[in-house]
Amino acid sequence: MVECTSIKMSDRRRLQPLEPGFSMMRTLTVDLGDRSYPIYIGADLLSQSNLYRPHIRGKQVCIVTNETIAPLYLEQVKQGLEGYQVDEVVLPDGEQFKNLDTLNLIFDKLLEKRHNRTTTLIALGGGVVGDMTGFAAASYQRGVDFIQIPTTLLSQVDSSVGGKTGVNHALGKNMIGAFHQPRCVLADTGVLSSLPARELAAGIAEVVKYGLIADAPFMDWLEANMDALVAKDGEALAYAVERSCQNKADVVAKDEREGGIRAILNLGHTFGHAIETAMGYGEWLHGEAVATGMVMAADLSQRLGWLNKADVERVEKLLLRAALPVKAPTAVTEEDFLSLMAVDKKVLDGQLRLVLMKAVGEAVVTSDFPVETLKETIAASY
Amino acid sequence: MVECTSIKMSDRRRLQPLEPGFSMMRTLTVDLGDRSYPIYIGADLLSQSNLYRPHIRGKQVCIVTNETIAPLYLEQVKQGLEGYQVDEVVLPDGEQFKNLDTLNLIFDKLLEKRHNRTTTLIALGGGVVGDMTGFAAASYQRGVDFIQIPTTLLSQVDSSVGGKTGVNHALGKNMIGAFHQPRCVLADTGVLSSLPARELAAGIAEVVKYGLIADAPFMDWLEANMDALVAKDGEALAYAVERSCQNKADVVAKDEREGGIRAILNLGHTFGHAIETAMGYGEWLHGEAVATGMVMAADLSQRLGWLNKADVERVEKLLLRAALPVKAPTAVTEEDFLSLMAVDKKVLDGQLRLVLMKAVGEAVVTSDFPVETLKETIAASY
Repeated sequence: MVECTSIKMSDRRRLQPLEPGFSMMRTLTVDLGDRSYPIYIGADLLSQSNLYRPHIRGKQVCIVTNETIAPLYLEQVKQGLEGYQVDEVVLPDGEQFKNLDTLNLIFDKLLEKRHNRTTTLIALGGGVVGDMTGFAAASYQRGVDFIQIPTTLLSQVDSSVGGKTGVNHALGKNMIGAFHQPRCVLADTGVLSSLPARELAAGIAEVVKYGLIADAPFMDWLEANMDALVAKDGEALAYAVERSCQNKADVVAKDEREGGIRAILNLGHTFGHAIETAMGYGEWLHGEAVATGMVMAADLSQRLGWLNKADVERVEKLLLRAALPVKAPTAVTEEDFLSLMAVDKKVLDGQLRLVLMKAVGEAVVTSDFPVETLKETIAASY
Repeated sequence: MVECTSIKMSDRRRLQPLEPGFSMMRTLTVDLGDRSYPIYIGADLLSQSNLYRPHIRGKQVCIVTNETIAPLYLEQVKQGLEGYQVDEVVLPDGEQFKNLDTLNLIFDKLLEKRHNRTTTLIALGGGVVGDMTGFAAASYQRGVDFIQIPTTLLSQVDSSVGGKTGVNHALGKNMIGAFHQPRCVLADTGVLSSLPARELAAGIAEVVKYGLIADAPFMDWLEANMDALVAKDGEALAYAVERSCQNKADVVAKDEREGGIRAILNLGHTFGHAIETAMGYGEWLHGEAVATGMVMAADLSQRLGWLNKADVERVEKLLLRAALPVKAPTAVTEEDFLSLMAVDKKVLDGQLRLVLMKAVGEAVVTSDFPVETLKETIAASY
């Protein structure tokens, strides 16, 4: 029997309501004992190197970024690092490059430039850059420091916080990696102005996730402010990033290595990973796959009698307002889903565990569902 | 200024003298809190699966071994694993295959056979198999269990204990890896009967290392028993493995992640890594390079006035009795040494730290030596 675990926003400190003058920086802390670290959130933080310089312990820095982000922000970050040995690695852009071969480009640079154990890597980019840089930092000389400067909404609210790092394998997403916490996270909401609409939407999917799993009041806020988010309203984005990071930080502080409760953060991800893997990395954005996956999780929850149909429609409607997909691609067959979900990390001793919802704002991790009902959900997902 | 640290056997519990009936199994413990684990030492342990089965938490096992070891011992280990899903990966044999590409063969198998987070990897082989299996376990789905069954003297006394795992990079040895402790270590001294003489000697180099760094009485024992070791006398080998593992376990328990004292275990390794890297992996065995490296460390210690010439000769003489090399290969130039040593992990902020000896049985980690004296040692090493 697998335990059901859930967490509610009411268990935790409520966030303060949005204040005037929010463009000021706010700092959250991920509370992990001697691995605790701050998340700085605000506009125009990229130019404030005084925020992250104190987290660099040695004299060497290696900035890892990609071909899309480098022309936009690399020089600005480098300017803030006067006095250090600064090297840079510019990776190709895209999930299809998140593999061991690309990872090795980072090691090549670190070794060519003789970086030692006191070096600090800086991940400047989205989730792919952050995950690979984090894993490179976890593995280089058995572990060096790194700093996250996420440049997409998705990475600001999700992958840059919590220490999950890694690369994909042809047979599964994020199958190779490590838990390795950054020294700090710098979420500059100003850089989101350059983010393509499709990527913004992919980030909004993960923002909605926090509402669905543990924060019903945030769901209400999202329904009231979705248009502002899609229009890239600065204050709305900053609040969404802060509240998402607070939700994530609270869960991670309780369960750093995903022994239990942290798994609720995977709402929609088991379905979503199946879509991403079957379509080939890079076809669907991660957040798009998660959006459809969350609708599938809601559908299954409804079939189990936990949600009602109006709840499922509410989820779909909110995601559609962000132009996110809520239907599975027909190219991913029912057999694909069942086969790929069985190798997802959420399988324990052959038993598929899924994150489902007891209510909007209350996720549970459970294997307590008939396979037939799961098949119904998949069949209805197209 | 880098601190000098040293440890002496007198600080620690003395091992009991060799008893009659030593062929009985002995158990040591590596004391690391909730990551503590036992080392079982004795003859014919491979057939005693009751020793390691309790350390397997799930229902899946993947044995990783190589083409040399598989025909000798794979079936025996598989027979002990009835009731589990048992898969196997047979890697090519040799240090030149200790890289990310070969590592990926392990991930391929784990994913093809749908191993989940509760799987246990078993490393059946020498140090290369152990280091790669350990790193695969550290990285697969961000960390699964593994068990070490070392089949060489070198891996029994060194690499299988302490949780250092990893692979090589073309520009440096063990540059990519993780600290990941095994669930248990099974050191079957019986399997050493099949070990080629050259590999036995390579293991003896690491055994001598423990005497040099912290255990002067063990040096005396080694001088009295070197012929028995070289002749593969069972009781002598078992005692050497036990005393070496005890020395290593004591150091690792004090400093798991090599923040300080653990670095003394690298005596001879900075010189040795330079030799291995310059020659190309696989030309010199690791233990052979360490043997020459220890002589170079002794030479430098003597030039600094810490050892006398008789001490250096004593080290050389003992290693020569095991047919180990004590001179650097002329193919590795002085420039090679200096260049390669500067990218060794023991460099902190540009300052080369070396493990040297204040006395036989008392190693120190220090950067307090003139580069000119280091050059003299290199020049005299051929």
